[in-house]
Amino acid sequence: MTKTGKEVRSQIRKGLITGPTSGMAPGYVQANLAILPKDWAFDFLLFAQRNPKPCPIIEAGDMGNHFTQFCADQADICTDIPKYRVYKNGEMTEERTDITALWQNDFVYFLLGCSFSFEDALVKADLKIRHMEENVNVPMYKTNIICHAAGKFKETPMVVSMRPFKARDAIKAVEITRDYPYVHGSPVHMGNPEEIGIPDLSRPDFGDPVTVREGEIPVFWACGVTPQMAAMVARPPLMITHAPGHMFIGDKKDYEFKL
Amino acid sequence: MTKTGKEVRSQIRKGLITGPTSGMAPGYVQANLAILPKDWAFDFLLFAQRNPKPCPIIEAGDMGNHFTQFCADQADICTDIPKYRVYKNGEMTEERTDITALWQNDFVYFLLGCSFSFEDALVKADLKIRHMEENVNVPMYKTNIICHAAGKFKETPMVVSMRPFKARDAIKAVEITRDYPYVHGSPVHMGNPEEIGIPDLSRPDFGDPVTVREGEIPVFWACGVTPQMAAMVARPPLMITHAPGHMFIGDKKDYEFKL
Repeated sequence: MTKTGKEVRSQIRKGLITGPTSGMAPGYVQANLAILPKDWAFDFLLFAQRNPKPCPIIEAGDMGNHFTQFCADQADICTDIPKYRVYKNGEMTEERTDITALWQNDFVYFLLGCSFSFEDALVKADLKIRHMEENVNVPMYKTNIICHAAGKFKETPMVVSMRPFKARDAIKAVEITRDYPYVHGSPVHMGNPEEIGIPDLSRPDFGDPVTVREGEIPVFWACGVTPQMAAMVARPPLMITHAPGHMFIGDKKDYEFKL
Repeated sequence: MTKTGKEVRSQIRKGLITGPTSGMAPGYVQANLAILPKDWAFDFLLFAQRNPKPCPIIEAGDMGNHFTQFCADQADICTDIPKYRVYKNGEMTEERTDITALWQNDFVYFLLGCSFSFEDALVKADLKIRHMEENVNVPMYKTNIICHAAGKFKETPMVVSMRPFKARDAIKAVEITRDYPYVHGSPVHMGNPEEIGIPDLSRPDFGDPVTVREGEIPVFWACGVTPQMAAMVARPPLMITHAPGHMFIGDKKDYEFKL
């Protein structure tokens, strides 16, 4: 029997799960985490408003409150994620499985939509996702598409993820993902990678390369790594995120983020 | 010849236009305005994130900056709207046609999407909008649908606007407006008004009543009056808005806010 989001979170909270969450609680929404002190949180929210495709906020907490209200009922942001990363002045200083001791009254948490949600919809439409077939991480690339600045967050290159499809499936993928504006939405580019400043698809900046077959079109979506990059550039005194792949799992289902 | 958004703004800036903007610069986006001091702006942005249907922010300024970047190129928020309302502690204290003298370095402006944008799309699909046919304001109602609280903005009843259609056109209207999530999106209710706490359609809380004919379904959309009501309840020390009907007109076209 597969577990619910709540069941998995309970095991994470008890320290029984500390690894990546891929494939856990299928159908339940998974999300990226960013925690910032209040005086940085406004600019982050503004950055997200101006750059909704790479930065789709699906929940933002009240200052000082680390219990979720929307994506899950009273999940504890400090304990219910398998692994956290702590950044000071833009540099990672430690990984932890519990951040209760670090929580501050001026912290605001943000949960950001993740491509897992739209990939689930693509798979249900019988599209084959190459990095799943090849059992690797999705390839991600820095681009020459520049995100709008917002306060302390300066102009930052958008990071994109890439999935190759035949023309017919590429069209389907556009149709399907446009209905998920809260989890990156429709692609930002398709076809020639050089047009968006990617010199070589076989050398991604993050994740792993995947095979692009003759006649396939590489399709590029805005990626949730972008806001973390923006934060690294802006160097907030303190920021906490999930560790890559170690996501927040909600009570809401992926389909609830469909338009 | 019809004017562009920029041309109309230029006449507003010179004081040559001080009346309502309905029908001006057709095709160009019109938006609601809210200005709040920084220490209220974060909670307002959070309120909007949690209540995107009544509160679709299409542009938010950097603190202290009153020149737009996105909806229009360098429009002056202090002069380019025909009429403003100033609220102190939730009470309207004056109307003005220029707020340059009131601008503060800690002010943040917000432009919010407006139903004019999706009505344009409905009209282009040959739907007849009753309040246009009857040449009155759209009827608006307080409901028992409660908006999520956010910091200083407490739980507030959602205000909705209503347009009656025959079943076939009601379906069309749902299909069309779902593609405009940045300007209220799909309806929040259709049919029985009592289900959302409206006792009598002929007595709207704002705007004017319209005829609902035998066999027509009243269709309800989240309305941009909601965030103003939320602010009235929260009573910020100072808030400035547009005067009703006296909207901001951008350089962007309505269709650019389609998904």
